[in-house]
Amino acid sequence: MPPEIRAVGIEGLPEVQAGDDLAAQIMDAADAQGTPVEAGDVVVVTQKIVSKAEGRVMTIDEVEASPLAIAITEGHRRDPRHTEMILRESRRVVRMDRGVIISETYHGYICANAGIDASNIPGSDSICLLPVDPDASARRIRDSIRERLGVDVAVLVSDTFGRPWRNGAINVSIGVAGFNPVISYIGEFDPHGNELHTTTIAVADELAATAELVTGKLLGVPVALVKGYPYEPMENADSRDIVRDPDKDLFR
Amino acid sequence: MPPEIRAVGIEGLPEVQAGDDLAAQIMDAADAQGTPVEAGDVVVVTQKIVSKAEGRVMTIDEVEASPLAIAITEGHRRDPRHTEMILRESRRVVRMDRGVIISETYHGYICANAGIDASNIPGSDSICLLPVDPDASARRIRDSIRERLGVDVAVLVSDTFGRPWRNGAINVSIGVAGFNPVISYIGEFDPHGNELHTTTIAVADELAATAELVTGKLLGVPVALVKGYPYEPMENADSRDIVRDPDKDLFR
Repeated sequence: MPPEIRAVGIEGLPEVQAGDDLAAQIMDAADAQGTPVEAGDVVVVTQKIVSKAEGRVMTIDEVEASPLAIAITEGHRRDPRHTEMILRESRRVVRMDRGVIISETYHGYICANAGIDASNIPGSDSICLLPVDPDASARRIRDSIRERLGVDVAVLVSDTFGRPWRNGAINVSIGVAGFNPVISYIGEFDPHGNELHTTTIAVADELAATAELVTGKLLGVPVALVKGYPYEPMENADSRDIVRDPDKDLFR
Repeated sequence: MPPEIRAVGIEGLPEVQAGDDLAAQIMDAADAQGTPVEAGDVVVVTQKIVSKAEGRVMTIDEVEASPLAIAITEGHRRDPRHTEMILRESRRVVRMDRGVIISETYHGYICANAGIDASNIPGSDSICLLPVDPDASARRIRDSIRERLGVDVAVLVSDTFGRPWRNGAINVSIGVAGFNPVISYIGEFDPHGNELHTTTIAVADELAATAELVTGKLLGVPVALVKGYPYEPMENADSRDIVRDPDKDLFR
């Protein structure tokens, strides 16, 4: 059989509220549309609903903008209090220019605006922060699925990141559970007998990208199941494996 | 019906030689395994076999390394003549350190080693260069499919690129035909009525990433069909749309 995978978007989830049991909502919605969660699935959950369930939506009314936040935002569309929260969620600014902030989050991710945005949430003064520990978020969902269905799955939390040099954002992984996010071919040989010296592939990011093709931005489809992908099971999966060591990064 | 896509790897292609009719080989192999190319498919072809068919494999015996190529390579595994070809295929060096060369190719892509590598080709002195015009490569395959099958498909040439900040390479698009590689949500509204100001998604890169999950590096599966993805048809698709304008790039 040729290698084949299938990605299915899960529709019909309710508007997620703080404290919701996201895993139950996902399993229920998947059942309702006739594509249940099954052993070996990769369950890809977009960050926004994870943050909502974990109470990471806030209003900026309560925030006081610092002089730096006001200075950066001057002449740009963003509210300085929103900018202030970007600074507070950053542990290092990588670039700051023309209203754009590229920073390193406390997780180690380098992205625009510390992953904070205001789309797909109710209320014009609301913003949504990244989950505090996306691996723990993924683990909780995985554990709930195992508990209810008695099967092992992989879970990943995805977010939409821009990149240098290329137009258009793509979805990447920010949290993983149950599988190896970066597989290695180092020391293996290609069909011509050439040893592969350096190839590692961030399959977690490729799975996140795959899922985006069925979740989109406007579809109200915040979860996808990727079926048929032979992931490498890993009980102690850790997203730090996908964060490049500063010593090996030429673009710090 | 929930949104759903399927990615199928195409096995059984012959070892591609310069001058081969790649489109015919792809259609034949897809037929032979019972997953024929169909209208609306995205045909994802890995760069290596495109380069092989176009005669872009060369031996380094004929190359003379410049002093710079020798200096860069000193103490590293790569042959200085291989390094010389990386310099010749680059129009600008972005970073050069510890044996790593990140440069801008003549297509405008910023990647390691100008996209040149030595894996999955016969001969230990051989290297493989990127196609001269990957959009033209994609167009030729698309035209051949239309001619033989009478259907419209999207075609994408993929390659494996590393990225700053994140471990592991992922597949991205380096050539497109028949579809819009970067879709825009700018000016659209999310389900909560928030206007999306800046979101564009590089669906070509997400499709390339999807395909990598079934082609892999060692499987001898150099082509994938992505079925069910509602791409935006575009007759004059141009990969320059995916190259970030230097004025908007903070990581030149």
